[in-house]
Amino acid sequence: MTGTMTDKEMLFEYVLRLADDHLVLAHRLSEWCGHAPMLEEDLALPNIALDLLGQARALYTYAGEIEGEGRGEDQLAYLRPEHEYRNLLLLELDNGDFARTMLRLYLFAAFMELFWEAMLSSKDEMLAAIAAKAIKETRYHVRHSAEWVIRLGDGTAESARRMNEALEDLQPYCSELFETDSVTAFVAKQGIGVDPATLEAAWQADIAKIFREARLNGDTLADGYQTGGRSGQHTEAMGYLLADLQYMQRAYPGMEW
Amino acid sequence: MTGTMTDKEMLFEYVLRLADDHLVLAHRLSEWCGHAPMLEEDLALPNIALDLLGQARALYTYAGEIEGEGRGEDQLAYLRPEHEYRNLLLLELDNGDFARTMLRLYLFAAFMELFWEAMLSSKDEMLAAIAAKAIKETRYHVRHSAEWVIRLGDGTAESARRMNEALEDLQPYCSELFETDSVTAFVAKQGIGVDPATLEAAWQADIAKIFREARLNGDTLADGYQTGGRSGQHTEAMGYLLADLQYMQRAYPGMEW
Repeated sequence: MTGTMTDKEMLFEYVLRLADDHLVLAHRLSEWCGHAPMLEEDLALPNIALDLLGQARALYTYAGEIEGEGRGEDQLAYLRPEHEYRNLLLLELDNGDFARTMLRLYLFAAFMELFWEAMLSSKDEMLAAIAAKAIKETRYHVRHSAEWVIRLGDGTAESARRMNEALEDLQPYCSELFETDSVTAFVAKQGIGVDPATLEAAWQADIAKIFREARLNGDTLADGYQTGGRSGQHTEAMGYLLADLQYMQRAYPGMEW
Repeated sequence: MTGTMTDKEMLFEYVLRLADDHLVLAHRLSEWCGHAPMLEEDLALPNIALDLLGQARALYTYAGEIEGEGRGEDQLAYLRPEHEYRNLLLLELDNGDFARTMLRLYLFAAFMELFWEAMLSSKDEMLAAIAAKAIKETRYHVRHSAEWVIRLGDGTAESARRMNEALEDLQPYCSELFETDSVTAFVAKQGIGVDPATLEAAWQADIAKIFREARLNGDTLADGYQTGGRSGQHTEAMGYLLADLQYMQRAYPGMEW
């Protein structure tokens, strides 16, 4: 399909992927609202979800402008069928327990920190501006989640068991972060986007440092095999997530009442 | 029961009531996380919930210090039986639809704006400091919710119908806001708290202004009859709310793993 895409369609697709990543993870984190195991965390997790949602909004608005067909942020966020969502599979998986929630956030935020840093020099001014705001928020997400990965990984026998289980669950989904295709090749060539493969070594090094402190073994993180999100082939979890996410918009379309 | 309370117990009770009000409404609002009918609102409602939760945390921490028995914010927030919660019944009711959610928030925020203003001159330095932070947040909550009350009340036939239904549902619970007892008499006399009855006329006037714009009839708002929250006698909704709220803390007590 990407073979017949125009430049505009390539850019739209690229921004939409980013927006979907952030919307989907924001939704997963928001499921913790009012359910974190302590009041302090009940502030932190929803705050992170709100950061991600804010980033998603900016990206959807920009995607709508690129597309030029009048679709606004709400239409793009809420009113597409499942196979048109372009997010990474890693981000749509169920939260699982608190350990898995934090490990996923850490794995993604560590990637996004490198990504936004690279995007600061994007030739696309809007994406560079979004990166400038997002990088600050993302650094906090990395610090916060890394602390929990260490605290639980290097904690009690039970917390370490849970963290290792989380790592086993998420490992197959990590390599998708670094996938390339004609869209990433196009934006990288134009200097407006990042070839994610160029971020992999730095990501591995960042992860390795935290994992050593957490007494976790991340040697096989690069050997993932689960893929499909970027082309709209999702896991079973995505259907449930969308049913939940889209419910209000479908119940009250455009809040006409 | 209040007849045998010491001064310290009176103050603890007073602060706990305030803390419970904010925790319970924060939890209700957080149920909208990821379910607001538009992305913009998906940022606003959780942000308001986080403000309220932040206020609750400060109040619980202070209540724990007053009590002096080593109970921290998490213990006070999560680990009490239902009859020890002291929140207003209005705040524990189910959200209902978006109209009712916004109307409840408006009715309470309009009250809290007057309350925190009065508390700025509390002789209790901690409460005055909490008021100074809370008043700014509360002003925003009033503006935001009042806008929605007007937009829906003076909107389409369907939105007006929903707003009137919400008003009918909530009306019986409003007079509890202004209830006085030995605790409020004590703190008012000491100059550390507010006699809520003194705020009623101003609240009615504020509400009337917004209701005129919203084409709602608030004449009977003062004729409520539902009461019991301040003495721990709650509605059926409270049991479900607490089951949900306390689940994580009971599942992972103190996050020991």
